[in-house]
Amino acid sequence: MLIVPERQIPDLLTRSASFTAVEKVFAAMAAGQAYNFPVIREAIGHEDALYGFKGGFDRDGHTLGLKAGGYWPHNLEKRGLINHQSTVFLFDPDSGMISAMVGGNYMTALRTAAASAVSIQHLARPDAKVIGMIGAGHQATFQLRAALEQRPFEKVIGWNLHPEMLPNLAAVAEEAGLPFEAVELDGMTEADVIITITSSFAPSLLAQHVSPGTHIACMGTDTKGKQELEAALLGSATVFADEIDQSITLGEAQHAIATGLISRDDITEIGAVINGTHPGRSSAEEITLFDGTGVGLQDLAVAAAVVDLAVEQGVAIEVDF
Amino acid sequence: MLIVPERQIPDLLTRSASFTAVEKVFAAMAAGQAYNFPVIREAIGHEDALYGFKGGFDRDGHTLGLKAGGYWPHNLEKRGLINHQSTVFLFDPDSGMISAMVGGNYMTALRTAAASAVSIQHLARPDAKVIGMIGAGHQATFQLRAALEQRPFEKVIGWNLHPEMLPNLAAVAEEAGLPFEAVELDGMTEADVIITITSSFAPSLLAQHVSPGTHIACMGTDTKGKQELEAALLGSATVFADEIDQSITLGEAQHAIATGLISRDDITEIGAVINGTHPGRSSAEEITLFDGTGVGLQDLAVAAAVVDLAVEQGVAIEVDF
Repeated sequence: MLIVPERQIPDLLTRSASFTAVEKVFAAMAAGQAYNFPVIREAIGHEDALYGFKGGFDRDGHTLGLKAGGYWPHNLEKRGLINHQSTVFLFDPDSGMISAMVGGNYMTALRTAAASAVSIQHLARPDAKVIGMIGAGHQATFQLRAALEQRPFEKVIGWNLHPEMLPNLAAVAEEAGLPFEAVELDGMTEADVIITITSSFAPSLLAQHVSPGTHIACMGTDTKGKQELEAALLGSATVFADEIDQSITLGEAQHAIATGLISRDDITEIGAVINGTHPGRSSAEEITLFDGTGVGLQDLAVAAAVVDLAVEQGVAIEVDF
Repeated sequence: MLIVPERQIPDLLTRSASFTAVEKVFAAMAAGQAYNFPVIREAIGHEDALYGFKGGFDRDGHTLGLKAGGYWPHNLEKRGLINHQSTVFLFDPDSGMISAMVGGNYMTALRTAAASAVSIQHLARPDAKVIGMIGAGHQATFQLRAALEQRPFEKVIGWNLHPEMLPNLAAVAEEAGLPFEAVELDGMTEADVIITITSSFAPSLLAQHVSPGTHIACMGTDTKGKQELEAALLGSATVFADEIDQSITLGEAQHAIATGLISRDDITEIGAVINGTHPGRSSAEEITLFDGTGVGLQDLAVAAAVVDLAVEQGVAIEVDF
């Protein structure tokens, strides 16, 4: 079996490889060739940790396995470790034997960024010029970098509950040679694409902050109770999701579903757009909305790409297991 | 992190270490200090494989993790590999970082054998002389070897649907210097302890085959629909289980529960006997019955013991992950 330690992954995994892996597995999901297993997520009653497993099988990609790990909120202060800790395990679908183990921390950031990038590639207007960010934490910088590669954006605008974090976004814009402007939520009407990436439990982005023709990628809501958008936005937008089951139970769509504003049938898997079985955006005025909840298959797909890259570059550790 | 490959485990793991690990974790479960997570088990639609995850957390044993793997029915014929394939992953409960990976195949055989051995140690009559085996496959030999260490047995008797496999049991009896006799099911009335370890979907052992005072360990039933015992036996016995939730849903008790012969409250966790909060056997005439369904915490406990042994003996592989 092959091992790719966490420390090697930032040098191996590119945004481009992450994008390709995530795009392919979303397509396989919509084609019925890949599915996620039920998610296990346990508050273990120790260190306030949440721990669990996200598994899946992709017949097209010949990828089977799981991401295991979770959230240890005291890691940073107590141990100088990052609070999210995860590891991906890949198994040979033909024999059930373990084939690879891959550090999951950096990879998770890139696969989450790839999901919103895929949605922008397939749903944003081709002439999108301004990208708006709601959220300015560590993950927001990954989302923004990946998004900027999908359209010839000319400007980045951003809002965050704690404005002192906005320089995170300004730095990424500067890397890309783009101007950055801090705005109030009202100012988001200027954006052609909006990414929300907060851990909010109350909506920030309201319908009045969004212009016709905008593409919104909602990336922060992954738990019952979280919410980034006014539910009315889902009623007026064409809604896509990575996985519909998660979107309606713990994703951004949970609230619009609970209040009856939309139904399950109003949500389309993004993979259907990638596959061409759904036309995607139908007009320059339509608001498209991608609810990215994060699925195990994304982790497996990107981990498999990491293993391929590590083998190519001769840095995978081989263990006779 | 530490790695203990499958091939090293037969030289490391003893029946005694397995017994101690399983006994301790059953006690921790009954004391509310250890719990199993919901089990994921998926027919993945490839190679007729069943694949999944059994996880848990043992606060007392400071053990967190999962066993991943499953059953690949064509492995032996197609690849010369064993059909059951599994791997155990241990995580540091304080930080969420992976701490060890351990081959799960041989270990699973020993932990399953340890469970019936623990039940015999705590529930069989002290003067038990004859042990009866229902089932004579590969796993049956593990159950028998571990059982023989729990009482000064003087004779082994055995029955199997396919009698040509009975020499498997005779060989283990001979190792222990004991006589072996193949019997019809009627002959099981001679046994003081009976272990059932088949993959049957219809009862073999009927009430009329069991004498008063017998201890029965039912180890084969781990799936809805499987059954080794006439349900009436559960009505007349004092019933114990590794985990009650599994016992009533997919263990031997599923049938007696479904027909209302017994209720959930009639089943006691074996850990309560180990802890001394339940007296166990109350008389020389009582039939005691242990429903061993197999829980993830057993795997984690035995894997942790394997890691300790591998470190002691200097054979654990260390990987800077």
